[in-house]
Amino acid sequence: MKEFNLIEHFFKQKSGTRKDVVIGIGDDAAVTHIPQGQALVTTTDTLLSGVHFLPNASPHSIAQKAVAVNLSDLAAMGAEPAWISLSLSAPDVDEEWLTEFSRGLQDQIEYYSIQLIGGDTVQGPLAITITAQGFVPYEQAITRSGAKPGDLVYVTGTLGDAGLGLAIAKNEVDQVIEKPLSQVNRDFLLKRLNYPTPRLLTGTQLRRIANSCIDLSDGLISDIKHILKMSACGATLDLEKLPLSQALVNSVDEETALKYALSAGDDYELLFTVSEEQKGNLETTLASANIQVTCIGHLNGNVGNLELKKNNLPYQNNVQGYQHF
Amino acid sequence: MKEFNLIEHFFKQKSGTRKDVVIGIGDDAAVTHIPQGQALVTTTDTLLSGVHFLPNASPHSIAQKAVAVNLSDLAAMGAEPAWISLSLSAPDVDEEWLTEFSRGLQDQIEYYSIQLIGGDTVQGPLAITITAQGFVPYEQAITRSGAKPGDLVYVTGTLGDAGLGLAIAKNEVDQVIEKPLSQVNRDFLLKRLNYPTPRLLTGTQLRRIANSCIDLSDGLISDIKHILKMSACGATLDLEKLPLSQALVNSVDEETALKYALSAGDDYELLFTVSEEQKGNLETTLASANIQVTCIGHLNGNVGNLELKKNNLPYQNNVQGYQHF
Repeated sequence: MKEFNLIEHFFKQKSGTRKDVVIGIGDDAAVTHIPQGQALVTTTDTLLSGVHFLPNASPHSIAQKAVAVNLSDLAAMGAEPAWISLSLSAPDVDEEWLTEFSRGLQDQIEYYSIQLIGGDTVQGPLAITITAQGFVPYEQAITRSGAKPGDLVYVTGTLGDAGLGLAIAKNEVDQVIEKPLSQVNRDFLLKRLNYPTPRLLTGTQLRRIANSCIDLSDGLISDIKHILKMSACGATLDLEKLPLSQALVNSVDEETALKYALSAGDDYELLFTVSEEQKGNLETTLASANIQVTCIGHLNGNVGNLELKKNNLPYQNNVQGYQHF
Repeated sequence: MKEFNLIEHFFKQKSGTRKDVVIGIGDDAAVTHIPQGQALVTTTDTLLSGVHFLPNASPHSIAQKAVAVNLSDLAAMGAEPAWISLSLSAPDVDEEWLTEFSRGLQDQIEYYSIQLIGGDTVQGPLAITITAQGFVPYEQAITRSGAKPGDLVYVTGTLGDAGLGLAIAKNEVDQVIEKPLSQVNRDFLLKRLNYPTPRLLTGTQLRRIANSCIDLSDGLISDIKHILKMSACGATLDLEKLPLSQALVNSVDEETALKYALSAGDDYELLFTVSEEQKGNLETTLASANIQVTCIGHLNGNVGNLELKKNNLPYQNNVQGYQHF
């Protein structure tokens, strides 16, 4: 089956039906319309087998995650998603694999009301590159560079679940888990790894409220440093406040849980900063949404310094090189 | 060197300076503004080492080609290019390679006044995915589906050069070349392979004139079939009219030259169709541009049939299966 047929057969039929798509899959390029007053927001992320997902991951979860990590970038800008393009590199035309993969893609397309507007398929090592496009009203995009000393630091959801999920998926649980792992917890942690949830609603709600925002893809410590660098701030994090799931807390000791929450990647929660004055506004705005948001520290003017405290005492974690950059 | 630094170091400095880019490389996503009255045009193409370029191709040419093939898709829609995103998969951080690659990218960025707005780098087999975005005025995009029976079929430039260029690059010239290959011709043919020229100016000039357009990436016969299929037409091509370069004609016999012109890929010329009524308009519009355009046949109502004639006689080429689909 040739490339053209591959795209047509597996991806065109259920690629979505947005009214702002004038020309979708099947021409030299897609043509779409942006609403007046909205800026275009674009992001690209590649997932490579063996690097970003395990070779034995289900094609459904691979597709879902490839879309989710891109939508998470849009969420971090306060944007709403509209269209995706797919470049799929696959070693062969495995119809079963492609059927499951396209089902994962379609589930995301339907759930987020987005549309697949084009792409490319090549024969090569398994890799998925998605470009996601969305909108944000003019001058309302939330950046990494707008944070101010004094801002409160918040995160959505819980941290570290995907990190333990990865250890489970790689059968490395014996090394980290000291308590019996229940099926419920196991399922929850694997779901957090394989089916991350882009915090799109929260992202749009943070427009005009948050001074800065980033999505947590590489781990809390790595990612907050981007904000500190681009906003020329320092930060103090209060580790006893880190939101940890019951599944994580019930499966590993406290030290290990903190390690995952601080340095494991793939959480795809949002980290954002809000001035003291906007705190009330934030709480009112988020009250209607059923998304957990936790204040985990604050920013200061100590440029480039990341201070970790636990119950007001300096915290020495056993992962080197994370405290400063 | 980590991914973040890789992008920062090699690609950010000379990524372009367009005024419509509000946020470029370095945040979760790029934010850009589309001019009023313009639709967004988006395309994605992946180039894989060993498939789309030879493993020993120069990094400069790989970058140039990766951009060019995407801009060629925009040209085929009648769009002007604005922004590109890059996903680079490379086996290691080879500074010399990356320097040359980024130089190729920057040359294209400057030449076409586009901007690199984001991307991703992963460690893996050498592959380049570029997403190109541009604009076209509302309702002026040129599609594959607008062709009508009676339309004249045109192509830009000359055909088949990249095909012979590939044979030269692969050291397969002994099999096809019967005449001595001069250095000038060799250089020309290799340049046509490695440095294709997206026909952007012609594309924009064809708005409101051409009924349909496609870029020739897979070869004339393969690509015209997309137009025939999507426009429900047939076509007769007059092979004696095919525009062939002196370099091609001087290097191989007539039969071989036609074979390359008909079925070799990578030309990245435009094929477009124009009604008889618009012929004068086309000639006037293109007169000022120094781009060769040749009428090579016409469309008819014989849906799905591609007829090849040479000097008014049916042409039997020795490549099977190309006459019909």
